[in-house]
Amino acid sequence: MSSTIGKTITCKAAIAWAPSEPLSIEEVEVAPPKAHEVRIKILYTGCCHTDAYTISGKDPEGNFPVICGHEGGGIVESIGESVTTVKVGDHVIPLYTAECQKCKFCISGRTNLCSSVRTTQGMGLMPDGTTRFRARGKDILHYMGTSTFSQYTVVADVSLVAIDKSVSLDKACLLGCGITTGYGAAVKTVKVENGSVCAIFGAGCVGLSVIQGCVLNGAKTIIAIDTNDTKRSWADMFGATHFVNPIDIGNKSIDEYLVDSFDGGVDYAFDCTGNVGVMEQALIWGKLCVIGVAAAGQKLSFKPFLVVTGRQVVGTAFGGIKGRSELPDLVQLWQNGQLKVSEYITHERKLAQINEAFEAMESGNCIRTVIDMRTA
Amino acid sequence: MSSTIGKTITCKAAIAWAPSEPLSIEEVEVAPPKAHEVRIKILYTGCCHTDAYTISGKDPEGNFPVICGHEGGGIVESIGESVTTVKVGDHVIPLYTAECQKCKFCISGRTNLCSSVRTTQGMGLMPDGTTRFRARGKDILHYMGTSTFSQYTVVADVSLVAIDKSVSLDKACLLGCGITTGYGAAVKTVKVENGSVCAIFGAGCVGLSVIQGCVLNGAKTIIAIDTNDTKRSWADMFGATHFVNPIDIGNKSIDEYLVDSFDGGVDYAFDCTGNVGVMEQALIWGKLCVIGVAAAGQKLSFKPFLVVTGRQVVGTAFGGIKGRSELPDLVQLWQNGQLKVSEYITHERKLAQINEAFEAMESGNCIRTVIDMRTA
Repeated sequence: MSSTIGKTITCKAAIAWAPSEPLSIEEVEVAPPKAHEVRIKILYTGCCHTDAYTISGKDPEGNFPVICGHEGGGIVESIGESVTTVKVGDHVIPLYTAECQKCKFCISGRTNLCSSVRTTQGMGLMPDGTTRFRARGKDILHYMGTSTFSQYTVVADVSLVAIDKSVSLDKACLLGCGITTGYGAAVKTVKVENGSVCAIFGAGCVGLSVIQGCVLNGAKTIIAIDTNDTKRSWADMFGATHFVNPIDIGNKSIDEYLVDSFDGGVDYAFDCTGNVGVMEQALIWGKLCVIGVAAAGQKLSFKPFLVVTGRQVVGTAFGGIKGRSELPDLVQLWQNGQLKVSEYITHERKLAQINEAFEAMESGNCIRTVIDMRTA
Repeated sequence: MSSTIGKTITCKAAIAWAPSEPLSIEEVEVAPPKAHEVRIKILYTGCCHTDAYTISGKDPEGNFPVICGHEGGGIVESIGESVTTVKVGDHVIPLYTAECQKCKFCISGRTNLCSSVRTTQGMGLMPDGTTRFRARGKDILHYMGTSTFSQYTVVADVSLVAIDKSVSLDKACLLGCGITTGYGAAVKTVKVENGSVCAIFGAGCVGLSVIQGCVLNGAKTIIAIDTNDTKRSWADMFGATHFVNPIDIGNKSIDEYLVDSFDGGVDYAFDCTGNVGVMEQALIWGKLCVIGVAAAGQKLSFKPFLVVTGRQVVGTAFGGIKGRSELPDLVQLWQNGQLKVSEYITHERKLAQINEAFEAMESGNCIRTVIDMRTA
């Protein structure tokens, strides 16, 4: 592996050349990491709705051509100058939420939203304002600071975390987004208390992970809400105490139903749908935690008296988890048998089949597809 | 005083017979308290924007005829059966936010919004569904469970708190709403931390009280924002470190100005205006606490991505303070010289002049008018 250090690597990646086109599996040149950068050999990656949203062209901040993917697991191939956070051969998870441990946000103790690489990451560039990817003679943009849909990627040294080498990367990759986001929303952002009543809107990967967080924090009542009845057994498996399909409750709105059925409503509601209409219904009582990303231009709108009379609206990115300092704890929780991870995987594909993963996502019977990046 | 016990008392009150009419000072019959009720001789009352809002007719939940007022101080004249919370002669502050210490909300530890008398209070009635006020042969409604614009009023026994008799009721009455609301928003609801940066939109009674709370909790930077330049010296006196008049900042919006001037924005913003446009601008960074009551039908509207990327929206009623168990602490704070109270009083009027208090409120040079209820 040492022979590639300092050299450009040519490998396969799934490139989104333009909005709403299928991903194209082709060769990409991956430049060596500069100072404070790390090149990773990606072994596995999950596919998330956020990737699909950008690829669809609906994300107004989406730039093309780009290599998407932000839920990966891999091995450090080489490191740039001054990198001290990881070493060659480390098993790592790229982090779309960086953690520099130095900026005002990192040291505030109030948020996991590090500002160190935020601006360039949003533009699809490395912190020096350039890209490490080229294909067909053109620069290809990075995505969320991770770009895990490439067999090799380059990330900032604040944007990855080493994990125990004994852990299976084909499953651990899922801790790079969905599971951590949902679990952290319940445990870290909302801090669900023992005995509380929680409603989870949307029982996909993130919603099921919220359920896990609620279970671990001792919630008494955990109500999963989804319009897809096949999610009932999933919600059960992850520990929900109730499942409600809004289609089945007659003329009541879901908020009326919850107020009537659960002694005045719930303590905590989690939106895992990204649908602002659902968010507005989820403002029943107590605290609403917004996790889902709404479509461009959509606004959450409510009478401010709702918050004066006790509701709160909070949100979470990556579950409020600080990737470098806290993600290893989730790995440990999983290894201890307290956190389900492999159970989310309904589909496995090779890189060449990555477009099928997005088709499966739309089908409604997929929780997570893991892409094996080792061969194209 | 004992001669009135068990009898209807005829006294003067300021009655709002219909929306948007001046208050009419006239005789009202105040029935004796029933079980779990207390009749109070009101000595002083403040006038608050919420009274003005209801009297104006703009409040869709306002019912008439009604006796408004919710910022009072008085002496217990008599108690109904089974009242154990206060005794005759106690100096008391009526509480529009009751505290039964028994309902699921009171025991949740998460809110001061007691449900015990909520429904009837909202309808302008005592808990048994009737009113204790009559004038011109008609039933007159209660208001916010307090109706302090009457020389005698009847409240539920969960809706008042006894305070030290050595305290001046002509000032302590202000703890019945504005001061407590603002102070509590900073100290109890938001829990402003030492060293934090706070922006307060609106520097009236509530906003100045938020400033006091921020000072007491050790905020490093306290920015008062008001379109009225006369509020600058008020903000200074109460401990603001900066004053900004949005008119003076050129083409920048106030949120841009705060981001540019205060290293990326503020940790906590407080809306004390009730203006949803201001609330939306106050969603700069960190946590927005909504205190002001918005006009009917107005909605706060924002991209949910704002909360996903770190903002939070909370609200507060009565500053999150539990009146019976926590208001005496504020009295003590004031008596210790740590909380300003008398400084808010810019105007003093007699009951007969109560309409002038509302005119003064509109004039912009009034922080609080205290009405002396002892004579009409």
